[in-house]
Amino acid sequence: MKREELIAQIFKKESFLCVGLDPDIKKIPKHLLELEDPIFEFNKAIIDATKDLAVSYKPNLAFYEAHGVEGWIALKKTIEYIPEDLLVIADAKRGDIGNTSELYARAFFEDLKADAVTVAPYMGHDSVLPFTGFEGKWVILLALTSNKGALDFQFLDVNSQNQPLFEKVLKKSQSWGNDENMMYVVGATQAKMLTHIREIVPNHFLLIPGVGAQGGSLSDVCQYGMNKDVGLLVNSSRGIIYAGDGLDFAEKAREQALKLQLAMKEELAKLK
Amino acid sequence: MKREELIAQIFKKESFLCVGLDPDIKKIPKHLLELEDPIFEFNKAIIDATKDLAVSYKPNLAFYEAHGVEGWIALKKTIEYIPEDLLVIADAKRGDIGNTSELYARAFFEDLKADAVTVAPYMGHDSVLPFTGFEGKWVILLALTSNKGALDFQFLDVNSQNQPLFEKVLKKSQSWGNDENMMYVVGATQAKMLTHIREIVPNHFLLIPGVGAQGGSLSDVCQYGMNKDVGLLVNSSRGIIYAGDGLDFAEKAREQALKLQLAMKEELAKLK
Repeated sequence: MKREELIAQIFKKESFLCVGLDPDIKKIPKHLLELEDPIFEFNKAIIDATKDLAVSYKPNLAFYEAHGVEGWIALKKTIEYIPEDLLVIADAKRGDIGNTSELYARAFFEDLKADAVTVAPYMGHDSVLPFTGFEGKWVILLALTSNKGALDFQFLDVNSQNQPLFEKVLKKSQSWGNDENMMYVVGATQAKMLTHIREIVPNHFLLIPGVGAQGGSLSDVCQYGMNKDVGLLVNSSRGIIYAGDGLDFAEKAREQALKLQLAMKEELAKLK
Repeated sequence: MKREELIAQIFKKESFLCVGLDPDIKKIPKHLLELEDPIFEFNKAIIDATKDLAVSYKPNLAFYEAHGVEGWIALKKTIEYIPEDLLVIADAKRGDIGNTSELYARAFFEDLKADAVTVAPYMGHDSVLPFTGFEGKWVILLALTSNKGALDFQFLDVNSQNQPLFEKVLKKSQSWGNDENMMYVVGATQAKMLTHIREIVPNHFLLIPGVGAQGGSLSDVCQYGMNKDVGLLVNSSRGIIYAGDGLDFAEKAREQALKLQLAMKEELAKLK
């Protein structure tokens, strides 16, 4: 999916919601466990209930790999089931030496048919570049993550420039791609930092985890991070998909997705 | 596999060779392509030809994921085929927020039955800790990688201490595990740096890629990196598995593995 198509979808649906498809077999409704492929059935119900409210789905690979071969089958079926006008982000956090990253890129873009893959920056340019050469596909580079461990390395001052490592990642990677094939993960837990981040990457889309369950505020994220093309995909996983655990779990998920979508609609109105 | 068992295997086999099982369908011998599972057949032949010369096998996940569901099946069969007295390293370079890394740990240690997993450090402690809680299993943290992109971030001076980022990773992670459940990836391309690295991590095993195809020297690695328990696993992938591409590819692989094993035997003799 190209940048202009993504932007068009956001304004059409009045939403920049990304729903995290992280199906944990311990948390999904009990009545699904009797079915042949509970993970796919869970995802299918969530997709049916939210596809008009979201512009993107983000399956995290760990939740599928935990089930080995069956997990990969469920993942592939899930991605095939997602309508084509939604951006599919394979949240894989991969990254390896060049010829190996090339294989990951083919695995995700060609075999799984995802539109985007998350990639960790530690191994540098040759681990990222192989993801940038596919028409209409995206690499989403981890910059500032929303977990506690983000404090261990991402905020380290580098080269005595009063510049934390994650900013160096943003700057250095500017030459590896552009705003048509690269996005960044920026956690919502410290939304005010988005002001400075926007000075470095004014045009790139940012994938924002951490709104909801992890404590980030949507209005803060929009105030400090939105650009003229919106430039945001805000992810919610647990807050939506585990809103209920009974027969009505999909309805409950829709209720939560709708709340976020309505809040996003308000934020989008401010752009005009 | 516990640390003492690994050390015992090394002295018994007079080898600290790790063979990288990176089966690229474009490079494996043509006659295997007619078989039902060429990737597994390739690995099986390589394992049969080298298992007495190596102490470890390291399948890189990308080479399997590139084939989707079939790739995972081949990977699982491969790991099951590897004799129990060899250490199986899933070279996956994973790393995610805590509850997600926990799922990866279970996927690799319980479903795939690997002994060790490589993990990227960028997301910090909660992305690494879930891999440390499994008896006889290992997390192998990326410190200094052997690719060109290593120069982008890993050598950045952090906190004005004249300390490159990869050293900070070594130091910071000391409290996350110990030399019984944690190893480090340290590329061989700059073997002299091992002297200083050994001051920071004197006892930990180091997984050393980059010997051979990427230019690192075995004798330099041993001179600067070996400790009293050896403390090294030296990996060779392409140099062994693609030594030949005809009917005798496994024999050719054995020849290359034997060369390395004999060189390792000489290095081990220096320890006595």
